[in-house]
This record gives sequence, structure tokens and C-alpha cells, in this order.
Amino acid sequence: MTLDDEPTAAVCGEFHRAVELIGKRWTGAILSAMLAGADRACDIRGAVDGLSDRLLTERLRELEGEGIVARRVIDARPPIVAYELTDKGRSLGPVIDSIREWGEAWAPIGAKKH
Amino acid sequence: MTLDDEPTAAVCGEFHRAVELIGKRWTGAILSAMLAGADRACDIRGAVDGLSDRLLTERLRELEGEGIVARRVIDARPPIVAYELTDKGRSLGPVIDSIREWGEAWAPIGAKKH
Repeated sequence: MTLDDEPTAAVCGEFHRAVELIGKRWTGAILSAMLAGADRACDIRGAVDGLSDRLLTERLRELEGEGIVARRVIDARPPIVAYELTDKGRSLGPVIDSIREWGEAWAPIGAKKH
Repeated sequence: MTLDDEPTAAVCGEFHRAVELIGKRWTGAILSAMLAGADRACDIRGAVDGLSDRLLTERLRELEGEGIVARRVIDARPPIVAYELTDKGRSLGPVIDSIREWGEAWAPIGAKKH
């Protein structure tokens, strides 16, 4: 069987880019916490076990660069920095849900279900 | 807002593990090609632009270890090595589809749609 026989198997660049964006270390967990309502850096960090301040900042900047997260400064004393999902970010909800369902069904922590 | 106010934001370990498993470099693309029918190493490699033999072998072994892929040797001359998705692997179909749909809608190559 060659690629010519099986043209539908070719993996499109959009998929490849999307799966590695979401799957990058910590990114999926940060998005999951934000979809569940966390909008301050301290809340996101608190929801994601093991995530450092430095990596959270790095990932939030990457997600801003991708147009998935928007940073907002609320005029208060002291100013409050909040992060919100853009339309593009919110549209990841069903994706994150489908991964969570699969993970709960098939990849329980401490067990390998085949 | 503290984590106590927002308990639903906590990211479960199953989700974290699943998203990083699927999102690991090349893994999502390999699974996508296999879900589309590729079952020989050469076909998978042909479907995934830029994937080397070495990394394909490494990823297939990891996926075998996770119970997502099964390796089968078909008794022929010369023997044929085929890879198939287990039930756990096939159940990733809807996950891969939802990522593809999001990628096509929101992350077109060469453009940033916010």
C-alpha cells in the first residue's frame, strides 16, 4: 500500500498544528482551568497541580500570541490583571471536553486499561 | 477569587495525562493517519509530513505501551508488520475529529484568525 492508494490518510497541517498547540506541556491544563472559570493567574496556577509561575506566564503569552487568550488590566487599586478566552479560545470547549471524556474512560491514573 | 471559591476549575490528572499523550510531538498526527486507515509504518510515515523513521518507531512503541496501538506480524514471505488501533485507540476517533474541526476553523496555516 502506498500513499497514492490511501490519500485520505494524509494528515493536514491544520490538525497537526492544533493538536500540538493544545497538547504542549501545561497548555491543555491551563485552557481547561480557564474554560472552567479561572481568570486570574493565581487561580489558574492553583487549579493546575505542579505549574510554576514562570511557565504559566510563558504559556499565557503564547496563548495570547495565538489569539486564544486576551489579557485585560482592570483599573483598580492595585490594578487587577485578568485573562479571558477569546472566541477562538472558547471554541476549544468541545475539544477539551472530548479529551477529558476519553481520559476518564481510558487513561485512569495509576492503571492501564487496554 | 481563590481556588476555594472556584473548585470546578481544578484540572484532573486524567485530563492532563490524556492531552499531553495525544499532543506529544507527532503522536496526534500518527493517530490521525492510523484512524484514516494507515496500518503499515511506511504508510503512516508517508501520511505525516516530516516524520522520521526513528521517531515513528519511538512513538509507535510508546503507543503500544499505552495500549493504544497493537503490533501484528503477518506470516508471509517476507513477514509483514502491521499496526492496528486497539479499542482504546479507536475511541480516540471523536477526539481527533474535534481537534481537526477546531484546527480547520481557527488555526489555518499561514494565517492568525483571532
